[in-house]
Amino acid sequence: MTAPDAPDDLTATANAFLGSVIPIAATMGVEFVELRPGFVRAAVPIEGNGNHFGVMYAGVIFTVAEVLGGAMHLASFDPSTHYPLVKKIDIEFLAPGRSRLTATASLPEDEIARMRAEAATGAKVPFVLAAEVVGEDGTLVARTRGDYQLRALGS
Amino acid sequence: MTAPDAPDDLTATANAFLGSVIPIAATMGVEFVELRPGFVRAAVPIEGNGNHFGVMYAGVIFTVAEVLGGAMHLASFDPSTHYPLVKKIDIEFLAPGRSRLTATASLPEDEIARMRAEAATGAKVPFVLAAEVVGEDGTLVARTRGDYQLRALGS
Repeated sequence: MTAPDAPDDLTATANAFLGSVIPIAATMGVEFVELRPGFVRAAVPIEGNGNHFGVMYAGVIFTVAEVLGGAMHLASFDPSTHYPLVKKIDIEFLAPGRSRLTATASLPEDEIARMRAEAATGAKVPFVLAAEVVGEDGTLVARTRGDYQLRALGS
Repeated sequence: MTAPDAPDDLTATANAFLGSVIPIAATMGVEFVELRPGFVRAAVPIEGNGNHFGVMYAGVIFTVAEVLGGAMHLASFDPSTHYPLVKKIDIEFLAPGRSRLTATASLPEDEIARMRAEAATGAKVPFVLAAEVVGEDGTLVARTRGDYQLRALGS
């Protein structure tokens, strides 16, 4: 069970963490909007992030999706014992981003259970996170598939 | 033949263009360091671009490689008739980036000739750009494979 106010606390903690550890993402205006075990969502404004077509720059779309790996770690695993590492990301750009964009990813409960069990052994724990990035009107702007690892701190 | 000073002029033009059209890349400190037809190189400093491991954030590594698509367009094709569009990028993170990073990509002459011929017909011209991102000590930090298109302006 999670207390009703836990997701808000978690989201605020994650945003404070983002601002201090990935300043460039905070400069873009990337922020977490919903975090709970197995579910993470981040957003980024169009203001300041446009390219020469007046649409959001690819590197910003990449970032709003990529930070979900760290958010999923914070929301679902133990940051006092493990850290997340990104190994590979495939990103498809499907439509221009012309508004605030929202990136969402989730992991099923059985996958989280597998990862927690493997993490407890001290092994590197690979996981795949698929994210969708959508505009305010619901347009699917980008899709990512990221290969991450959970690693024990100090390893 | 290219005049000896042409690459410097082209690089300066590309950097001015980058600063005005992708401000967030300029904020990261991304700059083009060598551009000529079929060959492009960009760099980005470690200062201000670190993450919580003290290494360069993934979104910055993505950006220094991704901007090579636009740079290749400027260096090799006609920006008065066509623009470049990124469709997909696969990026592998192979080692931590702990220094200034340099991203390099090239296209062979016959590929440029094919693209110029196809562009002249007004068709969308797909091209693949593979880039390597290396640290100051030569460490291979990341590898990307990008699917881009050249498109006629107004299309």
